[in-house]
Amino acid sequence: MTAEKILLCVLDGISDRPCPEFGYRTPLQAAHTPNLDTLAREGICGIMDTIAPGIRPGSDTAHLSLLGYPPERYYTGRGPIEAEGCGIHMERGMIGFRVNYATIDDEGIVTDRRAGRISDTGALSRAIQEEVDLSSLGVEFVFRSGAGHRAALAFRGEGLGAAVSSNDPKKEGAILHRFEALTSKPEDRKTAEALNDFARQAGEILREQPLNQEREKRGDQPANMVLIRGAGQMGHYEPFNEKYGMKGSVIAAATLITGIGTVVGLTRVDVQGITGSANTNLEGKIRATISELEKADFVLLNIKGADEAGHDGNAQKKKEFIEVIDQALAPLQDLENCLIAFCADHSTPCSVKDHSGDPVPLLIHGEGVRVDGVDRYDEIACAGGGLHRIRGEYLMPVLLDLVNRSRKYGA
Amino acid sequence: MTAEKILLCVLDGISDRPCPEFGYRTPLQAAHTPNLDTLAREGICGIMDTIAPGIRPGSDTAHLSLLGYPPERYYTGRGPIEAEGCGIHMERGMIGFRVNYATIDDEGIVTDRRAGRISDTGALSRAIQEEVDLSSLGVEFVFRSGAGHRAALAFRGEGLGAAVSSNDPKKEGAILHRFEALTSKPEDRKTAEALNDFARQAGEILREQPLNQEREKRGDQPANMVLIRGAGQMGHYEPFNEKYGMKGSVIAAATLITGIGTVVGLTRVDVQGITGSANTNLEGKIRATISELEKADFVLLNIKGADEAGHDGNAQKKKEFIEVIDQALAPLQDLENCLIAFCADHSTPCSVKDHSGDPVPLLIHGEGVRVDGVDRYDEIACAGGGLHRIRGEYLMPVLLDLVNRSRKYGA
Repeated sequence: MTAEKILLCVLDGISDRPCPEFGYRTPLQAAHTPNLDTLAREGICGIMDTIAPGIRPGSDTAHLSLLGYPPERYYTGRGPIEAEGCGIHMERGMIGFRVNYATIDDEGIVTDRRAGRISDTGALSRAIQEEVDLSSLGVEFVFRSGAGHRAALAFRGEGLGAAVSSNDPKKEGAILHRFEALTSKPEDRKTAEALNDFARQAGEILREQPLNQEREKRGDQPANMVLIRGAGQMGHYEPFNEKYGMKGSVIAAATLITGIGTVVGLTRVDVQGITGSANTNLEGKIRATISELEKADFVLLNIKGADEAGHDGNAQKKKEFIEVIDQALAPLQDLENCLIAFCADHSTPCSVKDHSGDPVPLLIHGEGVRVDGVDRYDEIACAGGGLHRIRGEYLMPVLLDLVNRSRKYGA
Repeated sequence: MTAEKILLCVLDGISDRPCPEFGYRTPLQAAHTPNLDTLAREGICGIMDTIAPGIRPGSDTAHLSLLGYPPERYYTGRGPIEAEGCGIHMERGMIGFRVNYATIDDEGIVTDRRAGRISDTGALSRAIQEEVDLSSLGVEFVFRSGAGHRAALAFRGEGLGAAVSSNDPKKEGAILHRFEALTSKPEDRKTAEALNDFARQAGEILREQPLNQEREKRGDQPANMVLIRGAGQMGHYEPFNEKYGMKGSVIAAATLITGIGTVVGLTRVDVQGITGSANTNLEGKIRATISELEKADFVLLNIKGADEAGHDGNAQKKKEFIEVIDQALAPLQDLENCLIAFCADHSTPCSVKDHSGDPVPLLIHGEGVRVDGVDRYDEIACAGGGLHRIRGEYLMPVLLDLVNRSRKYGA
């Protein structure tokens, strides 16, 4: 028997370094994780450099690598991925940007980079989409709200470049910057000109919006400016179903991860109540995953809360959330006809409060895997496993081969 | 807590193959090494191919790789590195050479390739520097004494190539060769012409030197010729402090290793009484290292004696020197705020009497490392460690990540 489907379960930032509060064990070592441990006992383990040894991955580059799209060949910056994550369909050559709604005063000083953490920006984004006009520059655009104060922008047109600066001064109390081309190339100058025009028009439109006038009356910061950064030109991603012959879906709270999924051609599955934090609807996410696996051949599931605890430097919270994750994973033990790979996209050590290049623990469970002697899913136990140490870009080939979908190379 | 500094301790040629005299254990397995073993127990171990599996490294290419300058991209021959090691500041494009002082007879036959192992050549080199004149060819040069009978030469000028042969017949009793261009390119011909002129003038000057006349009177071989080989054009090395954001130093007896260090921008630290042999001043070297780590962020320490014993094929001497090294390393156990990596640059098996491509044992000790179950620093124990098997070019990324100096790739 061979499994036919693949679940890639990314336990975002779950791995760590030894923490003094746990007697120099990691939160994953310290946590009580009976479900993951059972899966480890029945599966094969190893460690993985999602990009390469010692390379500190972003979540975006790491997920690209895990999906078999090595970032050194595919990654063109965060903008196009965030744009996809906000539901903009990025075509090759389009320029994508991350956007924050922000507040500026009459002098052009940025007084709040998140506009009082505004959250319901749909009407504002629709107004921008309808009223901003860049046609005199030959530029079309798409503008969409994201989660909270976030949004995304994409430009389409002839002769547009991505080497441009941002208007975000990166700190409050500083004056809004002008966009500048970072080279003397006409395409970068054209993009900078279009961005300056876009931001000016958007500011004028935003000031007239009833929502902002209400906010000001209430004493809230109005969202009267857009801060635009992370410019990147959309590249060519061979669609996932053509590359692997599998229909795939993505389930994740973070727009960055759903963006990566949709960029490579995965179908985005929305689940009510998922937040990417410890209060997320984990059970719903697992139910949605199991149900999606009835239709799709491949599901990328990202579970984010442990990463957040690592960024906060809170080892105790991280351990507790790992235990919550482990409980939520219980139904996966009954999944039939499915290979499951558990890994992280990167370590997020509490001592670092950011990603690190430490390898992540990898566990593959399902029909056909060679079972090793590892009986615990953690950084140290997995290092002794039968998969040894592999790179993220080889994970998909290994999984495809285990479901007999790899192509023979040679005769 | 995270360490801030890095000590890279290269135990030159320490690893080996099984030796019959130790019941088919290696000298490192047979040696009593309580300090290295304690560090192994407290750290994480693995094995490393300094260049790639099965590739037999030179000390120069191996050290370049360990410092994160992969030799396939950076190495342009030994000449420029030896020149740096002799204190010549090599600028990009200069041609560097290794030099031996030698003895020839009136017929031009090389009678001693090392001029009776002459050692005090400072006056001879100064005379060459002052009196040889290549200005008619538009070539400037720098000539410096190295250790013993060794010296180095560098050419600077327009249109100089490095594809030239040597005047060294490689054996005694053979006639001095003429330098030849190895291609028909004018730049290689110009270098060959300059070398022939240089060697002729140097020979004439050397014959007039009082030191040589005294040596002849004493019955010693006069240093009346220079054998020049290892031509290489200096390439561009991104300076270590710019590449890594760390101020680094190198402590080594061999000019080849200090040369590599200074080529990539490390500061050379001289220690009295270090010879690269078993009689070296090891305690002084360790003291200098600890003291240097107060000023520098990174120190490359090379300890050479075990390599020499391997080249001699003397397993017993190798084992004994390994025990001397282990004793000398004791003070490193008290080093605070410092990550220490122990490795070799290559194996030097006593059965081979030369370098081999066998992987070298790697041990990383310090705050933040994930401690594995290895409790012994040797070739076999380390192969079971949590680092598995990595390549030399990833050592610096791994170490930088452990001191939180790696750059995030992506978002």
